[in-house]
Amino acid sequence: MKYQLFYWPSIQGRGEFVRLALEYCGAAYDDVARREGEAALENLLARRTLATPPFALPCLKAGRLFIAQTANILQFLSMRHTLCANSTVKRIWTHQLQLTIADLVVEIHDTHHPIASGLYYEQQKAAAKRRSADFIKHRMPKFLGYFEQILARETARDAWLTGKQVSYADLSLFQIIDGLRYALPKASARTLKKCPRIQALHQRVMDLPQIRAYLGSKRRIAFNQDGIFRHYAELDHSPSKTGRWP
Amino acid sequence: MKYQLFYWPSIQGRGEFVRLALEYCGAAYDDVARREGEAALENLLARRTLATPPFALPCLKAGRLFIAQTANILQFLSMRHTLCANSTVKRIWTHQLQLTIADLVVEIHDTHHPIASGLYYEQQKAAAKRRSADFIKHRMPKFLGYFEQILARETARDAWLTGKQVSYADLSLFQIIDGLRYALPKASARTLKKCPRIQALHQRVMDLPQIRAYLGSKRRIAFNQDGIFRHYAELDHSPSKTGRWP
Repeated sequence: MKYQLFYWPSIQGRGEFVRLALEYCGAAYDDVARREGEAALENLLARRTLATPPFALPCLKAGRLFIAQTANILQFLSMRHTLCANSTVKRIWTHQLQLTIADLVVEIHDTHHPIASGLYYEQQKAAAKRRSADFIKHRMPKFLGYFEQILARETARDAWLTGKQVSYADLSLFQIIDGLRYALPKASARTLKKCPRIQALHQRVMDLPQIRAYLGSKRRIAFNQDGIFRHYAELDHSPSKTGRWP
Repeated sequence: MKYQLFYWPSIQGRGEFVRLALEYCGAAYDDVARREGEAALENLLARRTLATPPFALPCLKAGRLFIAQTANILQFLSMRHTLCANSTVKRIWTHQLQLTIADLVVEIHDTHHPIASGLYYEQQKAAAKRRSADFIKHRMPKFLGYFEQILARETARDAWLTGKQVSYADLSLFQIIDGLRYALPKASARTLKKCPRIQALHQRVMDLPQIRAYLGSKRRIAFNQDGIFRHYAELDHSPSKTGRWP
């Protein structure tokens, strides 16, 4: 069975967390709007007769089932493919980590759109400067410090977030780091200096054969100024020396 | 087995979605910090040796397992108690709805804290006015319109979000409506005029015997100005007549 992924065709966005999981487990999928254009997405969002209509994208079609919400899609895929350790406790833990990553994604998006998604960046630039300064000083160190501590508990150098087996949360943390390095290169470099295990994990995900092949393919959309991770030099503040470190 | 809920003792906050589920299914639980104070929470958040440390609260202890992230906790509880329909498809659908509610919760919080959680409201009041205006005009109608449409597809008058059986998503939608009526009484009343099924669902949840008993007890903390739902009269804008309606 071939999956159908419904997501915006010109950005990585939230869809990228799903793409990475599908690519890692070698699942066949059709990135619908990249072939058919955005009309396919608009049609889907307008279909009021669906049993499980999405509020927003991404949405994955698996057989006759439509599944939305990134973390929900990943959890579903992990029931069918090897995308996390196969125990109830590890499944709950993996999902907990993924939902924490989802919270971080919202905060990253809101660094450049703190007032309204429907307004242009230029219409909320002053607020974006304040929000991104707080993100760089407090939130990014707190989130990345959390993941670094989790990795630090594992004694093996090649351990993943949940232990011996790579999970969709690892793929998603890779994407977070990749995106932060694009959006906030100076500030993220400063924070990541204190996170050697996260840096190593990013590299190890990139070195997974399936991920390496994907990143080198045309299927990987480049970061750009329409996605969640956007680079505005004026938001890439130098972190204050007084920034909290958890 | 008695659950232990770790959450801030003076607010409903995100913990309230868990409290409502525990109360609905009659599970025995200890609201730890309401008995022991916030030191119990600080101790938990500082415990680096936990197998599954929380990034933030709420956190539920079930036996030896610590589970964080509201939607993750609710999904876990629904595996043990009657909190959603017992089919894989309905479980995925219920979780999808819950994660959409979680997105809405973030947006509601950010109406009064669009710049930083660590700053006072007064330090971000101008941005809060802009963000709440957008929320009232665009986001609240879009979210509530989505849930109203889902309820409208069910032919039975007494149907719940996912069909014949009440789920944790219904309890959470009740909480959203209760909170919006506290925080934005004028604006939410305008939007809810177009959402008769959501209004009816709110009433029907309130009439569930377990929920009615809970709401009348001292266990239910009153809404206040420290939670997610806060009432600032200046943010309760009149919705524009040009507001989009999905």
